[in-house]
Amino acid sequence: MSFSFSFDIQSKEGRARAGTFRTPHGDLPTPLFAPVGTQATVKSVTPAQLEELQATLVLANTYHLYLRPGDELIAQLGGLHEFMHWQRPILTDSGGFQVFSLADSRKIDQDGVTFKSHIDGSTHRITPEKSISIQENLGADIIMAFDECSPPYDLANNEAALERTHAWAVRCLQAKTRSDQALFGIIQGGIFPELRKRSAEYLNSMDFPGYAIGGLSVGETKAETLSILELVDEYLPKHKPRYLMGVGSPVDLVTGVQRGVDIFDCVLPTRLARHHVAITRAGRINIANARYACDAAPIDDTCHCYACQNFSRAYIRHLVLAKEMLGSTLLTIHNLTTLVTLMSDIRLAILQGCFEQFAADFFEHWECAS
Amino acid sequence: MSFSFSFDIQSKEGRARAGTFRTPHGDLPTPLFAPVGTQATVKSVTPAQLEELQATLVLANTYHLYLRPGDELIAQLGGLHEFMHWQRPILTDSGGFQVFSLADSRKIDQDGVTFKSHIDGSTHRITPEKSISIQENLGADIIMAFDECSPPYDLANNEAALERTHAWAVRCLQAKTRSDQALFGIIQGGIFPELRKRSAEYLNSMDFPGYAIGGLSVGETKAETLSILELVDEYLPKHKPRYLMGVGSPVDLVTGVQRGVDIFDCVLPTRLARHHVAITRAGRINIANARYACDAAPIDDTCHCYACQNFSRAYIRHLVLAKEMLGSTLLTIHNLTTLVTLMSDIRLAILQGCFEQFAADFFEHWECAS
Repeated sequence: MSFSFSFDIQSKEGRARAGTFRTPHGDLPTPLFAPVGTQATVKSVTPAQLEELQATLVLANTYHLYLRPGDELIAQLGGLHEFMHWQRPILTDSGGFQVFSLADSRKIDQDGVTFKSHIDGSTHRITPEKSISIQENLGADIIMAFDECSPPYDLANNEAALERTHAWAVRCLQAKTRSDQALFGIIQGGIFPELRKRSAEYLNSMDFPGYAIGGLSVGETKAETLSILELVDEYLPKHKPRYLMGVGSPVDLVTGVQRGVDIFDCVLPTRLARHHVAITRAGRINIANARYACDAAPIDDTCHCYACQNFSRAYIRHLVLAKEMLGSTLLTIHNLTTLVTLMSDIRLAILQGCFEQFAADFFEHWECAS
Repeated sequence: MSFSFSFDIQSKEGRARAGTFRTPHGDLPTPLFAPVGTQATVKSVTPAQLEELQATLVLANTYHLYLRPGDELIAQLGGLHEFMHWQRPILTDSGGFQVFSLADSRKIDQDGVTFKSHIDGSTHRITPEKSISIQENLGADIIMAFDECSPPYDLANNEAALERTHAWAVRCLQAKTRSDQALFGIIQGGIFPELRKRSAEYLNSMDFPGYAIGGLSVGETKAETLSILELVDEYLPKHKPRYLMGVGSPVDLVTGVQRGVDIFDCVLPTRLARHHVAITRAGRINIANARYACDAAPIDDTCHCYACQNFSRAYIRHLVLAKEMLGSTLLTIHNLTTLVTLMSDIRLAILQGCFEQFAADFFEHWECAS
């Protein structure tokens, strides 16, 4: 199947952009936040609940799905959309980040990475070609080049890793056979402006349909993250979508959009939910706290989600203390709704030309942003 | 609030009855199966999902909710319907069964039971008056008399327990102050016909709006259960609902209805779901079994539930092996749908005068019923 990807920018304000990325599974209004469905499910919720809370793009992890249940099985069952019953767009990462953060005893060479599965210790090898082959079996709308993610402050390591990442990006482009998937290049380079500039320029020269910014939010300071984003913005083409990987607190979303980012993903809202934490305008609240024992109010009285419209803090606290799954489900629905709604509010503000005012209000009124 | 409970029988076939029990939270078409929401939540699903699968009555446990979060807290927050956001009818048990099966170091006297919490070892005492007080705080539509459940084969124990259960039933009736709750008496007596007859006759003389049959499905044979049901049927008033407590496999539902039972509850469908087991017409299947690894078919291709309409056995198996919560959710939705649908099919058959044919087909075609 042939498909022509396109990214149209409807409005700009400063570096911020409101756009539409066209994919085989529908148009993605940007900026957007993508919930993470590591193992082909966004933890604690059904696809119907995700649709109801207006999620548009869902991320799934190549490393996890390659190991279990296997990308060939998923291909045989019609691909990831059919398998997990998500008919809106899907993005898969390359497996690179997990190979470097989760797998045991990995060995990197110029050709790829050999590692042991964190599930059963079995030995596996992923090369750029293998990553693309897995991602073609999975069949996501947006796929990622296989990259090497280094500790952010190690210059020598980042230089060597960047060379491999660039060489692997070329091989990924060459290995790709499906025209209904948009392959994004990934910019690396740690906290080093020179490396980031080199990476953005090099990948830009290869004309990917979109660009991911990797290796951030992995230990560097917020100021470093923002200055890298500002630098990268200068060297990336303006008419292509930019995806900041693994970043997703409310303040990260606003500051990212201010620096030209269009797509974000993060496990934060779903992981916090499983640890009893709700993301609200008044900051993060741990619903297990005794102060909520008799609290008849919803998690956030400004929120329109299923959890906030129908359940009290006292009830959700009870669920959490009683270790009932519904507690995670309701907190997940709330947290995802908060981020998805924040992004659609941001988009609207950009379209109306009042995003800078919106951001100022956000920094004034959102507790976590102060 | 005053309310006039009524039970109208629309159709009878043999001992089987199709009726309507009127409650403050709506009419209950019978026979029916009630999902169990022990801690004010049916495990793994939202109230919205329960409504979608056409559940009508939900059971909650007095013992659990008294201990955590506390019945007074629930009353303060508007009662159980408001607390758990279930606007259809609710039934609470008396706490008796859990005191005898879950609590530590219980001591029974004529006045009540002293026991230690299974949660934190704290000491508590429940009397008939206390059980009614807790259930009035919870505010269910149907509440139960406080009873003593004995091992089914111990005659002396059953005789002594029955005397207490009967004396406690009188005290429960006297203690009751709310007119918007229907208090059901509970028939006990183990496997002993003489005790069961005595219990049914005694409680019948007290004119409860409905009767529960307790102490079955706790170790006795299926033949013993059925013969007790047949005996009790003779001594209970025909125009009041009968509730067989804690029973709920498909074959139990059909054989129970054949013996005049109107209401059933059981943890079976929800508990099996959390152990990867689906209830189907072809018997119970463990979805974790390797035979389903590549199986693109739904759990049960005759089922109209959200799980069967949208997901393959292979996907649900993957969720279960990856320990993803969505696996329990989908299996719970399926299992509850199977029992709720079986009951509405049974009801329709009774209304159409073809229940005996329906039962014959059931025993011929349902694997678990053969």
